[in-house]
Amino acid sequence: MIKLTFARKVVAAAVCAVALIGPAQADDKKVYRLKLAETWPTNFGVFSAPARNMAELAEKLSNGRLKIEIDTANKHKSAMGVFDMVRAGQYDLGHSASYYWKGKDENTQFLTTRPFGMTATEQYGWFYYGGGMELMQKVYEPYNLISVPGGNTGMQMGGWFRKEIKSLDDLKGLKIRIPGFAGEIFAKVGASPTNIAPGEMYTSLERGAIDAVEWVGPSMDLRLGFHKIAPFYYSGWQEPATELQFLINKRKFERLPADLQQILMTAMRVSAYDMTIESHHLSGQNWVAMKTEFPAVQVKSFPPEVMAALRKANDELLAEVTAKNPLTKEIVDSQDAYLKQVRQWTDIADRTYLNNMAE
Amino acid sequence: MIKLTFARKVVAAAVCAVALIGPAQADDKKVYRLKLAETWPTNFGVFSAPARNMAELAEKLSNGRLKIEIDTANKHKSAMGVFDMVRAGQYDLGHSASYYWKGKDENTQFLTTRPFGMTATEQYGWFYYGGGMELMQKVYEPYNLISVPGGNTGMQMGGWFRKEIKSLDDLKGLKIRIPGFAGEIFAKVGASPTNIAPGEMYTSLERGAIDAVEWVGPSMDLRLGFHKIAPFYYSGWQEPATELQFLINKRKFERLPADLQQILMTAMRVSAYDMTIESHHLSGQNWVAMKTEFPAVQVKSFPPEVMAALRKANDELLAEVTAKNPLTKEIVDSQDAYLKQVRQWTDIADRTYLNNMAE
Repeated sequence: MIKLTFARKVVAAAVCAVALIGPAQADDKKVYRLKLAETWPTNFGVFSAPARNMAELAEKLSNGRLKIEIDTANKHKSAMGVFDMVRAGQYDLGHSASYYWKGKDENTQFLTTRPFGMTATEQYGWFYYGGGMELMQKVYEPYNLISVPGGNTGMQMGGWFRKEIKSLDDLKGLKIRIPGFAGEIFAKVGASPTNIAPGEMYTSLERGAIDAVEWVGPSMDLRLGFHKIAPFYYSGWQEPATELQFLINKRKFERLPADLQQILMTAMRVSAYDMTIESHHLSGQNWVAMKTEFPAVQVKSFPPEVMAALRKANDELLAEVTAKNPLTKEIVDSQDAYLKQVRQWTDIADRTYLNNMAE
Repeated sequence: MIKLTFARKVVAAAVCAVALIGPAQADDKKVYRLKLAETWPTNFGVFSAPARNMAELAEKLSNGRLKIEIDTANKHKSAMGVFDMVRAGQYDLGHSASYYWKGKDENTQFLTTRPFGMTATEQYGWFYYGGGMELMQKVYEPYNLISVPGGNTGMQMGGWFRKEIKSLDDLKGLKIRIPGFAGEIFAKVGASPTNIAPGEMYTSLERGAIDAVEWVGPSMDLRLGFHKIAPFYYSGWQEPATELQFLINKRKFERLPADLQQILMTAMRVSAYDMTIESHHLSGQNWVAMKTEFPAVQVKSFPPEVMAALRKANDELLAEVTAKNPLTKEIVDSQDAYLKQVRQWTDIADRTYLNNMAE
C-alpha cells in the first residue's frame, strides 16, 4: 500500500537527534559556567547573533543556572582553531562552520551546504527528519564533539570579483577566497582557491593577495566594503544553504544535568532557526539599500560555459571523494536522495508560486 | 548615508515580541499545570505535532515544573470554540489558526496568511523582525489573549474539486470549504464558501454538502481521502504560508514565574519552526507517493481568466476592508511594504536558483 508518512516525531523533533546523556544529578542551586569560542570577530553582523541569543536564552530558561561566556576571535586569536580548542576542552562550546574543518576530516565539509544542493528549508528537513543529524554525529563523534545546526545564511551570492568573468579562461590562476567543496571545484577548473579568516578578507583583497572573495550575501557582505574594490557581484550556485554550527565538547556536555542539556540544545536550535530568518530579513533590507546607494555594483551571473564547467567539476569531484571514503558516500547519497524527493515539492510549491507572482 | 541594517536583536529574537510580565515569585518546587485545547481531532498528522512537541519540551526544560495537558476536539467537542474557551479561561492555551476567528474580529484573518502574499520564510521575517508580532498582539490584546506562531504548513494547494474548473462560470454557486480571506474572494467571484471543522470535511464532501474542499497540501490532504471523491487537485495562490497559532490566556500567563513564561514561549517558538520544516518534509514524501500510488489525481492550475478574477477580487476586497478599519490598514500596509522589500531578495536568491537547477 501507499507509503505516505504522517508520523509525529515528538521528542526527536523538539529536541535533536543527539541522545541526551547523563543525567548528572540535578542540583537546583549550582551554577554551571561554559565558555564558547567563535570563529567570528567582534560585532560581526548576523553571524554574531546565534551565540549571543543562545547564551542569553539558556540563562533565562535555566533561571540563571547555566551561564555561557563568549570569546570572539579578537580575544582568542584563533578563528580557525575553534575545532581544536573545543576538542581539547580549552573551550566547552564553539560557533563556526563545519566546512572550515575539511583539512581535519573531509566529511565535515558536506555538513554545511553543497554546491547545486538543497535550500535551507530542504536541508533542515534533511537534518531533522531525513537522517542528517545522525550522519553529522557520525562524523564528529571520533573527535569527542557534538555538532548541531547554528543558523543558516540562506542562498549565498557567488562572490565579489575585481574583473568580469567572461569565459573559463578568466578563472585560470584567479586567486579567490572560497572555503569548502566549492573551493575544490574552483581548483579543478584552474583557479587558486584559499580560505582566509573572515577578519582578514578585506585587507587581502585590497592588497591584491586575492582577486576575488566569496563571502555570504547582502546580509553580511556590504558592511565589509568589498564593493569598493571589487565591483562585480555574482549570483550564487555554490552555497545554497550555508548552515553554521554549534560545536560542543561531548564530555563537558555529559557532565551537565539532564535539564540543562535540554536547555542548551533547545537554545541552540531556536537561535539557529532565528538566524536563518534574520539573515533572509537583512538580505532583503540590504539588497534594496545596495541598489539605491551603490549603483556602481554590477550584479552578474557566470556565463553558461563557466556554469557548465563548474557543474562538471562538481560531479567529477564527488565521484572521486565518494569512491575513497564510505562515510562520504553515505552522506552524499543520503543528501542526493533527499533532494531528489523534496525538490519536486519545492518546485510545485515555491518555484511555481514565485514565478507566477513575478509575472 | 546608507541605511544597511546589521543590528543584532538579542532578546527580541530569542524570545518573542510579547513582553514577559510578572515575575510571580519563582518557587522551585511548585508544579504549574496548564490545559490546552486544540482545534484538531485526535491524531491529525503534522497539525498534532506542535502542541505535543511544545508540551513535552516545556516539561523537560522546566524539569517537570510545567505540565501541559492537551485536549483534542474529540474531547472538548468544540473545534471552532478554542478562541472563546481560552478567552474565558476554561482552557489556558489553544492551538488553532488565527483566520478561524474572522467572525469575531476581521483582523485575525490577516495573521495566518494572505492570498498572493508572503512565503513562510518571508512571513517569519515579518513576524519576528518586521513588526508583525507587535501587530498580532494589538489584535488579540482586547480579548485577554496572546497569540504566537504555531507552525507553518508552507505553500498550500488550491483544493480538491469534484469537477474541473474551466472558466469563471464553473465557480458560480460552487460550494467550497475555504476559510479566511480567500473565502471572501471566492464569494466575490460568485462561489459559496463555507468553513467546516477539519474533522467534518470528508463527510461533507462525500454527501455533496460541498463541491470542493480547500484544505492544506500533500502533507495533510491525502490521509483524509479527498482524492477518492474529488480528483482535481489545484495548485495554490490563496495560502502561501499558513501559520497556525498558539493562543494563551493572558492573565494565566502573567501568573507564571518569569522562567516558566520564558520556557513556554521558547517551547512554542521552536515547535512552530519544527512543524514548518516537518510539513515541507512530509509534503515532499507524500507528493512523490501520490504520483506513484494515485495516478488518477489530476494536478491542475486555474485558467488565467479565473486567476485574474481572483486577484482582482482580492485587491477590491482589501481596498474595502482597509478603508473601514484603521488597524486592518496598518496590518495590510505593513505586510505589503515588507513583501515589496523582501521579495526582491527571495527572487534573486531562491527563485533564480530553483529555476536554474530545474533547467
